[in-house]
Amino acid sequence: MTAAPDLTSTANPRVKSLVRLRNRRARDAAGVTLVEGHDELSLALDAGVRPTELYWAPDLVSGDGTDALLDRVRDTGARTISVSREVFARIAYRESPDGWLAVAPSPVRSLDDLELRPDALVLVAEGVEKPGNVGAMLRTAEACGADAVVTASAERAGTDFANPNVVRASKGTVFAVPVATGTSEQVLDWLRRRGVRVVVTTPAGRTELGRADLTGPTALVIGTEATGVTGLWLDGADDTVVIPMRGTVNSLNASIAAAVALYEATRQRDGG
Amino acid sequence: MTAAPDLTSTANPRVKSLVRLRNRRARDAAGVTLVEGHDELSLALDAGVRPTELYWAPDLVSGDGTDALLDRVRDTGARTISVSREVFARIAYRESPDGWLAVAPSPVRSLDDLELRPDALVLVAEGVEKPGNVGAMLRTAEACGADAVVTASAERAGTDFANPNVVRASKGTVFAVPVATGTSEQVLDWLRRRGVRVVVTTPAGRTELGRADLTGPTALVIGTEATGVTGLWLDGADDTVVIPMRGTVNSLNASIAAAVALYEATRQRDGG
Repeated sequence: MTAAPDLTSTANPRVKSLVRLRNRRARDAAGVTLVEGHDELSLALDAGVRPTELYWAPDLVSGDGTDALLDRVRDTGARTISVSREVFARIAYRESPDGWLAVAPSPVRSLDDLELRPDALVLVAEGVEKPGNVGAMLRTAEACGADAVVTASAERAGTDFANPNVVRASKGTVFAVPVATGTSEQVLDWLRRRGVRVVVTTPAGRTELGRADLTGPTALVIGTEATGVTGLWLDGADDTVVIPMRGTVNSLNASIAAAVALYEATRQRDGG
Repeated sequence: MTAAPDLTSTANPRVKSLVRLRNRRARDAAGVTLVEGHDELSLALDAGVRPTELYWAPDLVSGDGTDALLDRVRDTGARTISVSREVFARIAYRESPDGWLAVAPSPVRSLDDLELRPDALVLVAEGVEKPGNVGAMLRTAEACGADAVVTASAERAGTDFANPNVVRASKGTVFAVPVATGTSEQVLDWLRRRGVRVVVTTPAGRTELGRADLTGPTALVIGTEATGVTGLWLDGADDTVVIPMRGTVNSLNASIAAAVALYEATRQRDGG
């Protein structure tokens, strides 16, 4: 680690193109995402990601685990480029960068490329934007063995899974559970074509969650805390379910509602 | 609203004492908490809080709903004090204050003051510090009709429910579900004395969550994502339960784990 870094000029075109990848359009065009941070990269590797490039700053990384992580990344066939502290400060998107930034293929697939088992379990999140909420949903869906997580939005595609903040909040699981996105109409249409039952969670649901049949191919649809799902989902639902609330305030975080519904489906499928 | 505000000098001793309340020790000594923001205050009022004082900045509040919220606060018997923009900037703890700040009695009770029903359901969170996680747990516990939420920590009292960021993240529910805190030893001892069964969630749990008996008086104990609960809880547990994980990454957010366990208890109690 006493050799000069491979890349020391912030004027290098490679630096500029990395900075551009903070923009969704640039990421979509290149079909990539960014994974920043030692721990995030370790989790992503655990989940099976194969980075194409790793940028690391010898001046910033702490000794612990450096060689091990470098070796793991190299074993995937990725190119590793050491950079100066100045270059890393430019390409990092975090406020206190730790010297690790990988470029990896975007986890996002097209809806038609998603493979569903006969008793598929799909989580659909409409309008949910906070990376923390989307990340928590990915973690829970992965833990439940869901077939896919799909984000939707009324007018345009849903939350971008290749957003580095979503990647981070997902603790690597965005690379372990299949993900796709589309407008709400596209997603509903896709579910219909694939024969998946559409079960929408809403405070006005007609069936209590524990009494709904979630054993066949099922999509659980979650809306935002503030306004719920759009009318398209209420009109298109095969069933609407309500999560029981015993309190007086009646307020569940969106990722909590998703977890309660996903675990109920898992329980029914286990015959528990 | 054309009258001059009641309080315009940032040198006023009242301003200094409000600023001091950002500190846990000062809040504990005064037995109060702060509720900042129009929406947060509305939710807290929904949950039954009775503020002692309201500071509001006519220059900052938007017209919509101002009179209604002022009336609601006055109806509780609270004193209302209008302040200048400069004073509000000093007393606010948020970055973009909206002109509403109330002082209210701390929601925290002593363990011995908590009332438990015969089939009590208690959530214990050990070492969980992030206000977002504690807030989400409070919302879920309230929705499940839990008797109490208790925070614990190995060496000292647990997370402070009177922390304004916890109050905010709880969406008012910190005032609707009874809360207390203590060292882990104090909390375990209290549960024993009250005859509450101690059920600890841990990846190494011996009983699958759905097969554990959660129908009697039960405390569900959740630790941190990184290290779980301390040995005290593992040694003192009447049962240890594992939340089923089907994925390869096996990572659940602490507030999600709490929600899955609380809803399983609710389901069993409903006979669902």
